[in-house]
Amino acid sequence: MPMISSRGKTMPPSPIRKLVPFAEAARQDGRIIYHLNIGQPDIATPEIALNKIKSNNLKVIEYSHSAGIESYRRKLADYYKRWGISIDYTQLMVTTGGSEAIIFAFMTCFDPGDEVIVPEPFYANYNGFAVQAGIVIRPITSRIENGYALPAIAEFEKLITPRTKGILICNPNNPTGYLYSPAELHSLKDIIKQRNLYLFADEVYKEFCYDGQKFLSVMQLEGVDENVIVLDSISKRYSACGMRIGTLMSRNPRIMETALKFGQARLSPPTYGQIAAEAAIDTPPEYFRQVLEEYVQRRDLVVREISQIKGALCPTPKGAFYAPARLPIDDADHFCQWLLEEFEYKNQTVMLAPMTGFYATPGLGKNEVRIGYVLNVESLQKAMTCLKEALKVYPGRTS
Amino acid sequence: MPMISSRGKTMPPSPIRKLVPFAEAARQDGRIIYHLNIGQPDIATPEIALNKIKSNNLKVIEYSHSAGIESYRRKLADYYKRWGISIDYTQLMVTTGGSEAIIFAFMTCFDPGDEVIVPEPFYANYNGFAVQAGIVIRPITSRIENGYALPAIAEFEKLITPRTKGILICNPNNPTGYLYSPAELHSLKDIIKQRNLYLFADEVYKEFCYDGQKFLSVMQLEGVDENVIVLDSISKRYSACGMRIGTLMSRNPRIMETALKFGQARLSPPTYGQIAAEAAIDTPPEYFRQVLEEYVQRRDLVVREISQIKGALCPTPKGAFYAPARLPIDDADHFCQWLLEEFEYKNQTVMLAPMTGFYATPGLGKNEVRIGYVLNVESLQKAMTCLKEALKVYPGRTS
Repeated sequence: MPMISSRGKTMPPSPIRKLVPFAEAARQDGRIIYHLNIGQPDIATPEIALNKIKSNNLKVIEYSHSAGIESYRRKLADYYKRWGISIDYTQLMVTTGGSEAIIFAFMTCFDPGDEVIVPEPFYANYNGFAVQAGIVIRPITSRIENGYALPAIAEFEKLITPRTKGILICNPNNPTGYLYSPAELHSLKDIIKQRNLYLFADEVYKEFCYDGQKFLSVMQLEGVDENVIVLDSISKRYSACGMRIGTLMSRNPRIMETALKFGQARLSPPTYGQIAAEAAIDTPPEYFRQVLEEYVQRRDLVVREISQIKGALCPTPKGAFYAPARLPIDDADHFCQWLLEEFEYKNQTVMLAPMTGFYATPGLGKNEVRIGYVLNVESLQKAMTCLKEALKVYPGRTS
Repeated sequence: MPMISSRGKTMPPSPIRKLVPFAEAARQDGRIIYHLNIGQPDIATPEIALNKIKSNNLKVIEYSHSAGIESYRRKLADYYKRWGISIDYTQLMVTTGGSEAIIFAFMTCFDPGDEVIVPEPFYANYNGFAVQAGIVIRPITSRIENGYALPAIAEFEKLITPRTKGILICNPNNPTGYLYSPAELHSLKDIIKQRNLYLFADEVYKEFCYDGQKFLSVMQLEGVDENVIVLDSISKRYSACGMRIGTLMSRNPRIMETALKFGQARLSPPTYGQIAAEAAIDTPPEYFRQVLEEYVQRRDLVVREISQIKGALCPTPKGAFYAPARLPIDDADHFCQWLLEEFEYKNQTVMLAPMTGFYATPGLGKNEVRIGYVLNVESLQKAMTCLKEALKVYPGRTS
């Protein structure tokens, strides 16, 4: 029989294991399982977007333009202007989720064998996209002790080889919740300019910055228009993960022309999703005010609860909706598996993402987990109680 | 400034040039343009699918399972059983359009440098997917004189090298409208078995077989379960191109396991599209009876009109909704460009796809075009009149 490709064999399986449809309290084997392992929030999608779909009167669901429906692209450009990002609608294209924006960016900028430097821990699916594009991710380790701040630029310098073509960051960061400071972003600007590199920024969590911190986009860095590519998505912004609508954005016209060729091959992004996304741009500010307030409450709850655990460390995340935590455990993979398969407290358990899947350097993250605060406060409180009870009886507890 | 990748430079632009939103009679510069160059039909999407979307009451548009919503996959398996294809729902996965099914199949089965044999002319976007996967398409020429029948198996044998890992067909064929016979499919079965190759079949047009011809799927070939992969889509079936819902199907469990890893990296196919597609499975047979009747009328009109042109050849297609035609012209690319830019007849013109973009062998198809009969009979009649008038004045007419 014919063989599967080496590429297919190299392709990593999802480290978050079960990408099940989200359910706040999914019943499996009678137990309530709190899914804090995936980035699927329980937040309602804005009604303005849902209603636009329900009231649509299309008779034929047609392909759109390969770069996205023009009226949506124009409104998106206005939306970015509200963020201080000055961009023309021809400098962005609509993609099928942020995932496709990353793949298109990799395919456009890299050849097989090229290298990209990524601070770790990083969003695990970057690995899968790197395998598809045939490129090599060079990790540079950030540390929980300083909240996963950007590693020193000297560390980046050390990793640059003749094959290095770019640096990829996620800001605010998944899985660490870290928000890069203007100073850190400017230091990245300097190195990409000096070393002639691309800077890819996955900014899908930019709506979620807390404690009065202001988000700075890499599109706002001056003098690097040719180098900068932003990867964006509406999935988290409007809690609309299933719509599969993202954006690829650059002021480098060669990048946009080339990315469009990849876009033409797959014809178009989803039409329904684009219609909803266009309507969602008019979501009232009150929606975001409430959502942010909700996330801050959830974050504070998680940080407070984890910090009470002896031997645990949980830096307060300034963005996104993930709290990274060091726990007094021997092996995060084993612990998360054990929570799912062997533990219950009052007929409940909790699922977390082991941080090991987010590091590329083997051996790192063995006592770290990512806690997505994607459930309401009541469920989250119960989940935290579960976690604390679990640590009382987990055989691999280390302190 | 950093360089675009060689891959990006190699990536072919869309040969169909402008993938504009379909409009039966799109006004540009005051002229009516009949778009017969793209595969976007004017046929209504089944109401049962549209209504399901309009009446949905989801509050959060969530990710689905990476392989697709389970209830949809189960109904899809039932749908295929009605076509005589016995398949379990775990032997298929939902993809973001047929495009993604092709990419995932290529990524799963091929490594960079591997070769796939494809009868030409072929769907031009296969080229783009091949560039993305880093593989080489070896074309084998089919001929308009015998309606683009499958080339002799001896011709396939000649092209097999140590890097050949598969054969890809599209059945019924885009762009030729050819429907492969059971004998042809069995001859392909024999060669893939003997030479240990994959057989990929793009069967997105299977609903559109005419003149009482019966469709045979490669899934119905016996003894090649490990070798056969089907790529399918709802785009043409339900005239729902913009929903971006396809299927990848194989009884080879290693293929399905590996393809799912690519699926997990991109999280999930579009949720709205899946909901509509699941509902569409209950489309009444009357819908397809009417649609087929309509397409047969259109096809007959095109074949009749083209056949009246001196020096033209237009074999009657048995499937899909494209009529390939040899025209008395010097250069199909130039002719199609001229139609768009320089010609008008009573303030109208017609867009056709030059067949050159569908051949991989340079120089072939220079006097062939693909005519998509995607417009209603009245518009199609006007478009054919335009074409005939154009040929009266086109400076590069050859006979």
